[in-house]
Amino acid sequence: MTGEMTLPGKVDIREVCLRDGLQIEKPIPLSAKVAILEAIVATGVREVEATAFVSPSKVPALADAAELAQELDRYRASHDVEFSALVASPNGAKRAIAAGLRSIEYVVSASDAHSHANVGRTSAEATGQIAEIAAIAADSNTSVEVIIATAWDCPFAGPTDPQRVLAIVSAAVGFGVNRIAVADTIGTTTPRRVSSLISQVRPLIGDLPLGAHFHNTRGAGLASAYAAVQSGVTRLDASVGGLGGCPFAPGASGNIATEDLVYLLRDSDIAVDVDLSAAIDAARIAQDAVGHDLPSALLRAGDRILG
Amino acid sequence: MTGEMTLPGKVDIREVCLRDGLQIEKPIPLSAKVAILEAIVATGVREVEATAFVSPSKVPALADAAELAQELDRYRASHDVEFSALVASPNGAKRAIAAGLRSIEYVVSASDAHSHANVGRTSAEATGQIAEIAAIAADSNTSVEVIIATAWDCPFAGPTDPQRVLAIVSAAVGFGVNRIAVADTIGTTTPRRVSSLISQVRPLIGDLPLGAHFHNTRGAGLASAYAAVQSGVTRLDASVGGLGGCPFAPGASGNIATEDLVYLLRDSDIAVDVDLSAAIDAARIAQDAVGHDLPSALLRAGDRILG
Repeated sequence: MTGEMTLPGKVDIREVCLRDGLQIEKPIPLSAKVAILEAIVATGVREVEATAFVSPSKVPALADAAELAQELDRYRASHDVEFSALVASPNGAKRAIAAGLRSIEYVVSASDAHSHANVGRTSAEATGQIAEIAAIAADSNTSVEVIIATAWDCPFAGPTDPQRVLAIVSAAVGFGVNRIAVADTIGTTTPRRVSSLISQVRPLIGDLPLGAHFHNTRGAGLASAYAAVQSGVTRLDASVGGLGGCPFAPGASGNIATEDLVYLLRDSDIAVDVDLSAAIDAARIAQDAVGHDLPSALLRAGDRILG
Repeated sequence: MTGEMTLPGKVDIREVCLRDGLQIEKPIPLSAKVAILEAIVATGVREVEATAFVSPSKVPALADAAELAQELDRYRASHDVEFSALVASPNGAKRAIAAGLRSIEYVVSASDAHSHANVGRTSAEATGQIAEIAAIAADSNTSVEVIIATAWDCPFAGPTDPQRVLAIVSAAVGFGVNRIAVADTIGTTTPRRVSSLISQVRPLIGDLPLGAHFHNTRGAGLASAYAAVQSGVTRLDASVGGLGGCPFAPGASGNIATEDLVYLLRDSDIAVDVDLSAAIDAARIAQDAVGHDLPSALLRAGDRILG
């Protein structure tokens, strides 16, 4: 492989601890989520995925989405931060908007098998709903991001044909969404495949911001994130503490850890809004809230202390 | 940063579990080391750093170096594997060669502060000893690799001036060593700085093989390893299980984990001699031997199982 690699001057991090981080944990009290929220906002991060408006029976940990949404107002007033929520259907989009959110992420799985398991629809059916969700969002001046799940691999169907991802990207752009992101849902991709897919997605999206979402399940999360940034991604999801691992596999890595990502980007001369020390503090609060060790490297090793 | 990135067809992995992995652990019995050795050799790896001939009082975990060296013969006979030992002085080189080793690594720290703490000599004094070690090795047809420690950062003196590294590289090449490697001793470097240093080292070494050694202390070990490979490194050190973390910080990452590295390289279409499944087995045996959880991602998540 040969390619031109250029680093951007800045990368925007979206903190997903409260959604992707908590979604497979045992439910924690709203007060504990507010403590995490407080710590996250204090990092200086400008985008926070706060919850998901999905089936409470499928994701009990996020059943308090509307209640949590009410807590966001006071941070909106005092901080320059955009809160968003994940949705999986037009109905979820309506609920999120009714709860006051003005930024939503709609997930479409590129794999039919995963899409069926996740939302009971084919990938094409889920893609078709982008139009309705975009219309709902437009009525209330709400931003829509389409996140393409299983963009590299599906747990049921194996490697995802990149053409399936590109078809969803093209449809989403056609429906007028505001942002696109690709997600390594099961933490299996690596830098070469990241660069390859991103280089195919970019020509389709014009000036739309492109994000990526990685899990560190097989240790390559940061390597993949760096490859994505080299390939033109300017937005990355991350979770303080690396929360998001399966609670039944203690220590297994979930989302890439915000503090580990900040360390790497800072060392790459790439600006981020997140303060590293505050992110480590937030990781500690998240770890206390869920009651088990989190896989973050910086949470253990701390920042580099030199000279 | 803009640079041309090319991936090689093959990368050679050196398994360092028995040396760097174990050196800060509580001493384990020789029989436990032999069990690890057996499992490591079964992975198909072609190079194994088996021990170090250094001060037994400074590194009690490796005080059995000569005894372990005796165990290597039977694997040499049955497997195509090169065993090596780390040395820190001409005397150590003599001991290693007397014990039957025909491949040694001599460590020179680029930082005076670290060199003093480690071997009681300045970096220049340690560099000067390369000549004597190369002469000792030549007398017994022994291969010498110079590993430059603290190549990016020193725990005492801060970031290392790349010129210090380049001066040691030039001296080592002049003294006729067989291989060069650069080591991120404290696990603080990241891909941008890796690519930068490697690109400066390469023009100085001609056709000599160039290796790199990373720790995953701050989560960026695999990202750095991949950057090194993109920049022309064809030899990487790794330890099954990611052994090598500080035993007083449970779960903290040590060396990059062999199995995580193999997963990433395989997914990058880069050939390696190490079987992934056998490496995970070896990691489990190493974990049992030291009696605490190891930080490897694959040890928890397993290989990708798709379709």
